[in-house]
Amino acid sequence: MRFWKKYAEVQVRNSSMLCIGLDTTLEMVPPEYAGLEPREALTAFNRTVIEATHDLAAAYKLNLAFYEQHGIEGWQAFEDTLQMIPATCITIADAKRGDIGNTSAGYAKTFFERYDCDALTVAPYMGRDSVAPFLEYSDKMTFVLALTSNEGSHDFQRKTVNGKPLYMDVIETARSWTAHNNVGFVVGATHVAELAEVRACFPDTPLLIPGIGAQGGDAAAAVRANAGGVAFINVSRGILQAPRQAGVALRETIRAAALSFMKDLRHGTADSTTITIP
Amino acid sequence: MRFWKKYAEVQVRNSSMLCIGLDTTLEMVPPEYAGLEPREALTAFNRTVIEATHDLAAAYKLNLAFYEQHGIEGWQAFEDTLQMIPATCITIADAKRGDIGNTSAGYAKTFFERYDCDALTVAPYMGRDSVAPFLEYSDKMTFVLALTSNEGSHDFQRKTVNGKPLYMDVIETARSWTAHNNVGFVVGATHVAELAEVRACFPDTPLLIPGIGAQGGDAAAAVRANAGGVAFINVSRGILQAPRQAGVALRETIRAAALSFMKDLRHGTADSTTITIP
Repeated sequence: MRFWKKYAEVQVRNSSMLCIGLDTTLEMVPPEYAGLEPREALTAFNRTVIEATHDLAAAYKLNLAFYEQHGIEGWQAFEDTLQMIPATCITIADAKRGDIGNTSAGYAKTFFERYDCDALTVAPYMGRDSVAPFLEYSDKMTFVLALTSNEGSHDFQRKTVNGKPLYMDVIETARSWTAHNNVGFVVGATHVAELAEVRACFPDTPLLIPGIGAQGGDAAAAVRANAGGVAFINVSRGILQAPRQAGVALRETIRAAALSFMKDLRHGTADSTTITIP
Repeated sequence: MRFWKKYAEVQVRNSSMLCIGLDTTLEMVPPEYAGLEPREALTAFNRTVIEATHDLAAAYKLNLAFYEQHGIEGWQAFEDTLQMIPATCITIADAKRGDIGNTSAGYAKTFFERYDCDALTVAPYMGRDSVAPFLEYSDKMTFVLALTSNEGSHDFQRKTVNGKPLYMDVIETARSWTAHNNVGFVVGATHVAELAEVRACFPDTPLLIPGIGAQGGDAAAAVRANAGGVAFINVSRGILQAPRQAGVALRETIRAAALSFMKDLRHGTADSTTITIP
C-alpha cells in the first residue's frame, strides 16, 4: 500500500510528524522574487521552502484555496509545486471536497490520479456515498474532517447526536466505510483534550492535526495528546512567515523555523510512546 | 443587490425555476465534436447547451468536479463557459467549498471576484467562520448545503441535534449569520416532504433544489413542495444526456429536453402560488 510504504520510509529517514502547509500567498513572497508572475512567485517561494525542509518534513500539505484564487496560474503553481516535492515525502491535497457519489468520483480522480497525491482531505457532511469514491483508492489516505481547528468547530461538530459529539459520530461512522486502513481524520491541535480522547479511542487511526502556531495550538501539547499514534502535525504560517533577520537568507529562516518546530514536536514525544508504524 | 436584480430580470424574461447543471463529461460529447482537446470539447458542448436554452433557464450551475478533473484544461473550460453564459442568466458555482476563515476568504475571492459568479454552494460542517467570508459578499448568494439529494444525506444530515434534524439546525443557524438576504440552502428534490417542511418554515429563503431526473426526484412534486418560493430546480443529466434521435441536432435535442422539464415545472406550479420576487 503506497501511502503506508511512503510513511514507513519517511519515518526511517526523517523520523518526523512535521507536515508543512504550503499555504503560500503573494504577500509572503519576499523582495528577492519581486517582479515574478503569480505562478512563478508562488513556485519559487515553495521551492525554497521544500529545499530548506525536505529532510525534516514527513509531509507537505497544499491547501487548494491558496492556489485556486489565482485561477489557472494558481493551478499551474499547484502542479509545479507537487512536481518539486521529493517522492520520499508524503503529499496531502487539502481540498476538503465532497459531493454526491458520481461527482466525488471526479474529485477523487483529480487528486489521486491526475495529481497522484498521497492523501486528501474530504468533508463528511454529505455522508457515505460522498466519501466512498475516495476510499476506493486503497493505496491512498483520505482524511475526513472531524473536529477542525477553527472557532466554527463549535457550531455543528460538537453538537450531540446519539449521545456523543457529532465529530465522534463522524469518526466512528466513516471508519466503518472502509476495511483498507485508508481513512484518517482531521482533529485540530486547538482542541487538545478532544484530540487525546480521539487518540485513546482510536489508537491506530492516522490523524492530520492542524492549528499549531498562528491558530494557537501548541506543538508539544498536541504530540502528548497524540500519544505516539500516526500523526501529521501541520504548521503553515509558523514556518512560511517566520520573521527574517537582516542578512539571513529566506532558506535559512525557513529551515530554522522548521527545526524549531521539530524540537517542539520532539519535546512532546519525550514523555509519550515512540511513533509506531502500523 | 446584484443577485436579486438579476433574479428579478430573469424571472420577467424567462419566468423559470429551471437551473441547468453543466455537469459536462467527455463521454457526453457527441461524435460531431470528435478530435477536439478536452477544453474545446467541453466548451463546444456547453456552448450548444447554452445557445439552446438561455431563453428558458433562470440559471446555469457548474459543478467544479467536472472541470477540475481535467486539470488546467478543465479550469479553462470552466472559464470559457462562464464567459458564454448571457449576463442575464444567474451563474452558480457548485463548489461545496468551506475551510477555516482566512482560507474560505480565498475561495470566496476565487468564485465571487475572479470568476464573478452570482452564487456559490458551500459546505456547513466547519461552522460560522468557514461560511462568513462568503456571506460578506452581500450582492452574491451563498447556498449552504442542508439536506442533499444523495443517499448519504441519511448518514449525518438527518441525525437529531437539539431535538431536530441536523439539516434544520444548519438552516436556522446559518440564517442567523447574515442580515443581507444572501443565504440560501441546498435541499434535494429526492426528499419532497422535508422540502415542503423547509419551505413552510422559511418561506422567503432561496432554495437550490438538485436531484431531478437521473437522481430520481420529480420536477412537479418539487415545485409543489416549494409552494411558490424562490427556487432553482436543477436538472443536469436529464437535459445534457437526453436521448438523441437519428437526424436530430444536439441543439434541438437539448432544447426539447429543457422544454419538457419546463412543462413539468409549470405543471407543478399550476396548483401552487405564483413565484414571488422578494
